Amino acid sequence: MEFHLPGELAPPSRLLLGPGPSPVHPRVLRALSTPLVGHLDPRFLEIMNEVQGMLRAVFRTENGFTIAISGTGSAGMEAALVNLVEPGDAVVVVVAGVFGTRMADIVARAGGRAIKVAVPWGEVCDPGRLEEALAREGKGNVKAVALVHAETSTGAHQPVDELSQLARAHGALVVLDTVTSLGGVPVEVDGWGVDACYSGTQKCLSCPPGLAPLTLSARALDAIRARKTPVQSWYLDAGLVADYWAEGKRVYHHTAPISMVYALREALRLVLEEGLPARFARHRLHSTALLAGVAALGCAPQAAEGHRLPMLNCVRVPPGVDEAAVRRALLSGPGIEIGGGLGPLAGQVWRIGLMGEGARQENVLAVLAALELALLRQGRELRPGAALSAAMEVYARA
Amino acid sequence: MEFHLPGELAPPSRLLLGPGPSPVHPRVLRALSTPLVGHLDPRFLEIMNEVQGMLRAVFRTENGFTIAISGTGSAGMEAALVNLVEPGDAVVVVVAGVFGTRMADIVARAGGRAIKVAVPWGEVCDPGRLEEALAREGKGNVKAVALVHAETSTGAHQPVDELSQLARAHGALVVLDTVTSLGGVPVEVDGWGVDACYSGTQKCLSCPPGLAPLTLSARALDAIRARKTPVQSWYLDAGLVADYWAEGKRVYHHTAPISMVYALREALRLVLEEGLPARFARHRLHSTALLAGVAALGCAPQAAEGHRLPMLNCVRVPPGVDEAAVRRALLSGPGIEIGGGLGPLAGQVWRIGLMGEGARQENVLAVLAALELALLRQGRELRPGAALSAAMEVYARA
Repeated sequence: MEFHLPGELAPPSRLLLGPGPSPVHPRVLRALSTPLVGHLDPRFLEIMNEVQGMLRAVFRTENGFTIAISGTGSAGMEAALVNLVEPGDAVVVVVAGVFGTRMADIVARAGGRAIKVAVPWGEVCDPGRLEEALAREGKGNVKAVALVHAETSTGAHQPVDELSQLARAHGALVVLDTVTSLGGVPVEVDGWGVDACYSGTQKCLSCPPGLAPLTLSARALDAIRARKTPVQSWYLDAGLVADYWAEGKRVYHHTAPISMVYALREALRLVLEEGLPARFARHRLHSTALLAGVAALGCAPQAAEGHRLPMLNCVRVPPGVDEAAVRRALLSGPGIEIGGGLGPLAGQVWRIGLMGEGARQENVLAVLAALELALLRQGRELRPGAALSAAMEVYARA
Repeated sequence: MEFHLPGELAPPSRLLLGPGPSPVHPRVLRALSTPLVGHLDPRFLEIMNEVQGMLRAVFRTENGFTIAISGTGSAGMEAALVNLVEPGDAVVVVVAGVFGTRMADIVARAGGRAIKVAVPWGEVCDPGRLEEALAREGKGNVKAVALVHAETSTGAHQPVDELSQLARAHGALVVLDTVTSLGGVPVEVDGWGVDACYSGTQKCLSCPPGLAPLTLSARALDAIRARKTPVQSWYLDAGLVADYWAEGKRVYHHTAPISMVYALREALRLVLEEGLPARFARHRLHSTALLAGVAALGCAPQAAEGHRLPMLNCVRVPPGVDEAAVRRALLSGPGIEIGGGLGPLAGQVWRIGLMGEGARQENVLAVLAALELALLRQGRELRPGAALSAAMEVYARA
């Protein structure tokens, strides 16, 4: 076992404008470095209450069961699905990208029957398509409809309200992925009638990755209580986890990731200090400026007008451009991270995240300048400054 | 949705001498607060390699698959078991406390048949008992033997080598829980022939909770590849997780908890700078001093001589003492956290952790002084200073 002890931790400075993680506010970094109390300490239990209250405010729900799962966003997805789905259950999954595909995979691993409504990548699901799928199964025969609010792999913004109403009219529970949307565009858990909604911390909440906010409606909890089989995951069993988070119970389940809870608490304070409407407007403004800028570079958005996510700008790479070389140039030069395409979009798109703390004018200008220079260096014919000028026109009008 | 925004994060200062989390070194807190790079950043991939190398050194293994699962120690337990156990598989589980019980629960949720070898709480498993259980099933009919190295609920230190040899002789894989032992007493994954070994970060590694180190042998990986059914968990699927951690692959699976990986890297550097033998000796010394001190207060260890964990001192509460009041007094006075009993030991024992950074002379003296004062205030007849004198005799001889 030959072994060399690594040196000091000294990662490079990065501007995180990819699909997540997003830039983290210094106050959140400071919260992370706070010395720990125990996970059953009376003060930590208060901190958990505070986090629950702020999560309810951000999810726009009064659900008692509103917690942070001890894992990343994908653990939230798994928690939402494995608690609700029993072997044999039919679940309609809207699949319009990587994350819808993942939902269907998890449903199948839980023994459920995943009925996929396939939507071209970059598009959103027409309510008629969902209605068809539900009608084919017959009313009351579908346990849940699962969909992704903000498909991080395509940048498409799925309208939820109508799909959710359809699902409920057919007696199905609604499972919604808001990993990328929460804190960046409106999410209305109670208003839309969503039964299980999960998110991640490293997108528009601008907290490091490691926790998955999850809220469950009374209907979802009833469904869990009515299960005939145990939840296949002990770690993610909502009943057990709830007994730890429930005020007055606090039954030991597993050791909470205390430092991450500190960080999430501070990140949520920042979100609510800014206020949700102002935060959503900020995300919209900077996305508009960015899209104007990249249009001047010859990049069109992947998602259709009216269905574009402001925090995840998925744009087509101009023909003939070596897109991976551009990303490498951004990382090795100014230290800017943007994302490439996933699955069928690999090599065809860039995914530029303006999430949470990332959605700032200086970041928009920095990434546009870096992209313009990288394209000029690949021999593209562009007027220097065109991208920044286009963005500045948006800011001037704002 | 009435809502009050919580104030500044200002938890009380605590000396963490319970069953975990343990005190975190300032260097680890500083690592936590390091600004993030992306989870696919070339530098982060190097950091993952460094963490893997240090985990191999601490686990004493050359296993290629040696990673940190994105969850707490219990997620490590679930990952080890759900990857190996298929529906119908027989798994012999040594149950001598809370964590053995949990292993059996997870085996059952994975569709396995958990054959429990029940051992009285505080005792260790006699090899003859395991041999009987294996013989009853017949050679080659048991998929795995699962056991806990350091039972955190009782303070008992299970000798692993002989049990592991028995398991392998019967053709069974060996699954070992080292959540509380790793970094505090010798763990020899390759030397003992362990096939799946997991731990947590918040015990003797003195890192905040949130990651679960996991190592799998080639035999374990073969068993996973030979599965007839998919792993029930997508999040913990070792095959998918391995493709992210494997050098040269780095296939996106889920967003790694970057800040926690930073922290673990620094915690492992501290462990290896000290050196494993010195670290083990330090844990032994301070445990000996603590046990001498609490003996002067009338507290005997729960585990038998020769089978006591140095990092988790589970001691009997003297008759007539209100143990919960003592713990409250320690927390509200000097701010010292110690643990109470779990399950059948609730109300009967204290669990005093001297884990990682916690195993220091000043902490032993602080907790003994606090316990002595709390007992004196409950009217016990004790000679003031008796506990500290007994501990000092140990230090004077060391």
